[in-house]
Amino acid sequence: MSDLILTTYDWVPDMPRGYVRDLRVRWALEEAGLPYRVESTPFHDRGAGHFAHQPFGQIPWLTDGNLSIFESGAILLHLGELSETLMTTEPRGRSDTKEWLFAALASVEAASQPWSFFKFSGDAEQTPMRGFFDGFVEARLKHMDAVLAEREWLAGDFSIADIMMADVLRLVDRFGGLADYPACGAYIARATARPAFIKAHADQMAHFAAADERAS
Amino acid sequence: MSDLILTTYDWVPDMPRGYVRDLRVRWALEEAGLPYRVESTPFHDRGAGHFAHQPFGQIPWLTDGNLSIFESGAILLHLGELSETLMTTEPRGRSDTKEWLFAALASVEAASQPWSFFKFSGDAEQTPMRGFFDGFVEARLKHMDAVLAEREWLAGDFSIADIMMADVLRLVDRFGGLADYPACGAYIARATARPAFIKAHADQMAHFAAADERAS
Repeated sequence: MSDLILTTYDWVPDMPRGYVRDLRVRWALEEAGLPYRVESTPFHDRGAGHFAHQPFGQIPWLTDGNLSIFESGAILLHLGELSETLMTTEPRGRSDTKEWLFAALASVEAASQPWSFFKFSGDAEQTPMRGFFDGFVEARLKHMDAVLAEREWLAGDFSIADIMMADVLRLVDRFGGLADYPACGAYIARATARPAFIKAHADQMAHFAAADERAS
Repeated sequence: MSDLILTTYDWVPDMPRGYVRDLRVRWALEEAGLPYRVESTPFHDRGAGHFAHQPFGQIPWLTDGNLSIFESGAILLHLGELSETLMTTEPRGRSDTKEWLFAALASVEAASQPWSFFKFSGDAEQTPMRGFFDGFVEARLKHMDAVLAEREWLAGDFSIADIMMADVLRLVDRFGGLADYPACGAYIARATARPAFIKAHADQMAHFAAADERAS
């Protein structure tokens, strides 16, 4: 019996499937070969038990013995501390891995998330702020493209930093945002060709498909 | 001679002074009593030497011996690993500290940053997306207020998680966004009353004021 339990929603609409944030955690667990199981929490009724694990009423969270951890970044860091496959023990590479893990969230996703909201919900708006957010993500992608043109992975060997960055960039790519950034595109192509990603993605799709079957 | 060197801009416009992200790092260094010095990099001319330390052309970065670390979250985590004052060594509290450090960035600032951009640049726009981003930050603040109504600090004793969260919430407060969230307001009041914050804030203001004097 595994001590690692990943909790995600029991169901989500079609649109986010394949991009729900439990994917980042599944991917890391598969890369490391750590045993785990997946549990579900209701998407529609988010009760006190849910908020006790995730105070914003979101997913995923991971339990490891008596630890319960939310935030995909914190979960990946925890798994990186469990597995040298996910984060080297060499001090410089370890520092670089953590730095890029934060950068994926606080520099890239902080810009790409509002951009993706505009793409998904507000694409008809051509306002000054729309232009501002387009410019914000473009500034980040321009620099990421320069970084990724010169290296295979962000911090030496493949790591949790790449899981996070590739998953952030995948959503930009889904909305057509990487056309002018070929090194970013090539990076997510090689990241998502990894068997651990393929398994994690298939498992997430199957998890939500099973919910459809139960409902029908 | 200290091994810890914090680099920030040599100058910034008046508007962001007191909120530039080196403040988070100064605050942590002051809380821990770690010796450090501050160096400057040009705000106007960001050359290859800057990008070698910070690939997005931003600040701050911290050097510690042969490590160079960018991303305020990664820098705070590094300092937390150097000082029990900033992050407990007790496993549960340590895990909670890291989780909330990420939450401040990826759950709260990810929502408050686009909201603050609208406040600063696009306050005249009353578009559907403006409403969406208002709702996004309100959802986060509602849950943060519930969390902070029940605890003094996020993860037991004061920690790097509080430095990050309080600094994120300060900017929301600056734009009047905490009026309906009294527990958030009380939290930043007690955080910013700490001597280490007061010194860090005064030092940042003095750093940029000195640049004005050199230019005049």
